[in-house]
Amino acid sequence: MRLHYIVEAQEFNRAMLEELFDIAGEMEHVVWEGGSKLLDGKIMASLFYEESTRTRFSFETAMLRQGGSVISTENARQFSSVSKGETLEDTIRIMNGYADVIVMRHYESGAARRAADVSRVPIINAGDGTGQHPTQAFLDLYTIQKELGRLDELDIAVVGDLANGRTARSLCYLLAKYRNIRIHLVAPEVVRMRQDIKEYLARHDVWFQEETNLRAIIGQVDVVYQTRIQKERFGDRADDYRAAQGVYVIDREMVERMKPASIVMHPLPRVDEITVEVDSDRRAAYFRQAQNGLYIRMALLAGCLGKDLQRQPSEVQFSGN
Amino acid sequence: MRLHYIVEAQEFNRAMLEELFDIAGEMEHVVWEGGSKLLDGKIMASLFYEESTRTRFSFETAMLRQGGSVISTENARQFSSVSKGETLEDTIRIMNGYADVIVMRHYESGAARRAADVSRVPIINAGDGTGQHPTQAFLDLYTIQKELGRLDELDIAVVGDLANGRTARSLCYLLAKYRNIRIHLVAPEVVRMRQDIKEYLARHDVWFQEETNLRAIIGQVDVVYQTRIQKERFGDRADDYRAAQGVYVIDREMVERMKPASIVMHPLPRVDEITVEVDSDRRAAYFRQAQNGLYIRMALLAGCLGKDLQRQPSEVQFSGN
Amino acid sequence: MRLHYIVEAQEFNRAMLEELFDIAGEMEHVVWEGGSKLLDGKIMASLFYEESTRTRFSFETAMLRQGGSVISTENARQFSSVSKGETLEDTIRIMNGYADVIVMRHYESGAARRAADVSRVPIINAGDGTGQHPTQAFLDLYTIQKELGRLDELDIAVVGDLANGRTARSLCYLLAKYRNIRIHLVAPEVVRMRQDIKEYLARHDVWFQEETNLRAIIGQVDVVYQTRIQKERFGDRADDYRAAQGVYVIDREMVERMKPASIVMHPLPRVDEITVEVDSDRRAAYFRQAQNGLYIRMALLAGCLGKDLQRQPSEVQFSGN
Repeated sequence: MRLHYIVEAQEFNRAMLEELFDIAGEMEHVVWEGGSKLLDGKIMASLFYEESTRTRFSFETAMLRQGGSVISTENARQFSSVSKGETLEDTIRIMNGYADVIVMRHYESGAARRAADVSRVPIINAGDGTGQHPTQAFLDLYTIQKELGRLDELDIAVVGDLANGRTARSLCYLLAKYRNIRIHLVAPEVVRMRQDIKEYLARHDVWFQEETNLRAIIGQVDVVYQTRIQKERFGDRADDYRAAQGVYVIDREMVERMKPASIVMHPLPRVDEITVEVDSDRRAAYFRQAQNGLYIRMALLAGCLGKDLQRQPSEVQFSGN
Repeated sequence: MRLHYIVEAQEFNRAMLEELFDIAGEMEHVVWEGGSKLLDGKIMASLFYEESTRTRFSFETAMLRQGGSVISTENARQFSSVSKGETLEDTIRIMNGYADVIVMRHYESGAARRAADVSRVPIINAGDGTGQHPTQAFLDLYTIQKELGRLDELDIAVVGDLANGRTARSLCYLLAKYRNIRIHLVAPEVVRMRQDIKEYLARHDVWFQEETNLRAIIGQVDVVYQTRIQKERFGDRADDYRAAQGVYVIDREMVERMKPASIVMHPLPRVDEITVEVDSDRRAAYFRQAQNGLYIRMALLAGCLGKDLQRQPSEVQFSGN
Repeated sequence: MRLHYIVEAQEFNRAMLEELFDIAGEMEHVVWEGGSKLLDGKIMASLFYEESTRTRFSFETAMLRQGGSVISTENARQFSSVSKGETLEDTIRIMNGYADVIVMRHYESGAARRAADVSRVPIINAGDGTGQHPTQAFLDLYTIQKELGRLDELDIAVVGDLANGRTARSLCYLLAKYRNIRIHLVAPEVVRMRQDIKEYLARHDVWFQEETNLRAIIGQVDVVYQTRIQKERFGDRADDYRAAQGVYVIDREMVERMKPASIVMHPLPRVDEITVEVDSDRRAAYFRQAQNGLYIRMALLAGCLGKDLQRQPSEVQFSGN
């Protein structure tokens, strides 16, 4: 697996995802063994044009656990401040002189693509505006694969803010690559899934249905993918927010209606759409899901930095501790 | 010494403090030799909910000098922003997937305890609100031990803002564990030591006295522990601040009244409560005290990460340079 | 080459610059080979009192590529906040307990000198106010040496904001050390080169001339050193800014008037004083120039940390990858 950039989830086909997940599985062992020195001497730049400490930490840990180093800013807007006016392209060209791989979060949709177009070193999109956040989409799929042992033959309820939730939208997109998928779109009226994804699912012959009664279907699904109602999207309409917020809550009573082998996922952070009493249930997979992000990002960094794990497994060096 | 968390200074008894100080002494040699690789492959998270570059640098240096790595933010409030509303407990659970030890500074008293209650990896409290800052308390004691060779039989003047000074309060608390301690509490009227600590000292049979005349007693003490009058506590009362500020100043004339084997300490930063002419006096211990923070934190990190220095000294690997 | 501090460009004479450039040349190979472990166990502090992510990344990469570690802040003002009032000198003394070398950016001219006066560890000035930014000056000279093969016998046009541009001023200063230099000072009326540098050049018998017609001389120069018109210097005078901004632009038509073996330099960031169509011309040296900063800073860090590369080349250890 050799990757030059990771800008959009759809660049990965089923075979690539399978290879990615195999390598992520290897990475779990690497972490367990105390890390590797695979990326010793390599430098990753965290170039964040908006703050996202959670995502930044996940990538930086993924680099450090493999013996690499990091240069980091959550203040990259300063590069292109109004008074100075540098273009993103110039910034990337300069960063090419420093880093071996650039992980970029940007406030504008399409920024990662523009960066990849001029960069000599690999670019990994860590979220650009309302666009893509491909590594989140990969870790979601990887979690399902790992928890349920399959990605075909799935019955899944995607719940919450489906209009604005980047992760819910990406998940639907990727699931269309698999066989016999059934998707229940469960959203408050004001944040229903937008037309583009529904058309996409129809075009790819994926069974889906818009639902309003989560309780009625929760007993039949393999995955509940819960998402946060994003208060910041409602502006002044605080009443609308509160109405949407309280509609679909996973509490103990709800989780006990679920099948024993099913799981509850959430991209985090959560507010109260999953109550804390659910955390101790074996089906609560959301903290394991967050942890999986580390393995996926380790695999992607190794792939970007030219380490062909599949072909030359002996190249992976473990450092005992 | 195996530590799961370091939340409050009182978790340490005399025996543990002695062991800690022994290991800190070893760490001075480690630094002198160019550092170790003891914590190679380990990751420390600096999770600072408020800025404290000084404390953060001290901990990060303590990690790096032992071959470990660091992920770092002074902007951790963003995790639990109003719009997103994640709990501290959820943040800690996610951080557990990244770091082997979490060093946390928080604006709320008790936050470190809450973090320790849910964390799988060790938590070190780097200050929580008006609560505790245990590593500062340890380095203060360690400095006295190192400079004077003992912690019993001490005559000490604690000077300055005793009402608000977290370090002065913690020091009084810890000194109560030792024998034949005499404490002079020397504060401007508006910032006198609060009742709780005085009652605590009385309950533990520690001799103490409130003084107003520092000059009268400075010749008899072993330690002057000077603290800054914290302007930010006075709000609009600028006159009150200036009055309190100028009352107790250690200048050359004052330090020359002190015993030859005595020391002047200060948790830093100082403003002008110790004049710069004192810096060159052998009794000025405050910069050595700041340096001691590094050795204490190296010892605590090693202890938290399961390195039992006392039992297996051969485990410490030195990297020459 | 053993350096205790790097505060001003003029501390370096011709012989020292030659040695510096030789070592920088070695560093290009080190980077090409995947980095070294020369500075393993060493810690650099990035102590930035104002943000400059670009410069900070360049220094941090220079440290990491040699196996060293970094502690970093772009928020060092907090150390000396109004409410706390710590002096720079105290901050430096405390930092001496943590770091092996301190790279400092400050908003006050002369701050680096004050730091160097009290520091036990080397200080590198990464820009202090309107004062010096010596490593930028060195990388500019190094770029000319590398691109043209000489530093004597040069015909150079320095263009743009010569009144405020720290780099243009420093370059003129350093060029006076070389033989048969001809300098064309090409600036809009409102930002002409100040008297001090012109007197300095006259005193050192350097040929120079103030020009208004760049097109007339561009065909004869070896170097066009273009600089940005700094909008922030113009305050309310937006019309003045726009007038100055548009006067001297290097576009394809201009660059094609230049000699085949000449180069266009720019300290970056650029706005539109060099059009993007020029980037693909072989004479466009500005991105290579930015990259050269890495090699210069690697050489300076090695020199500051007591690694005498010239005398003991075998001391340089390469880590393959």
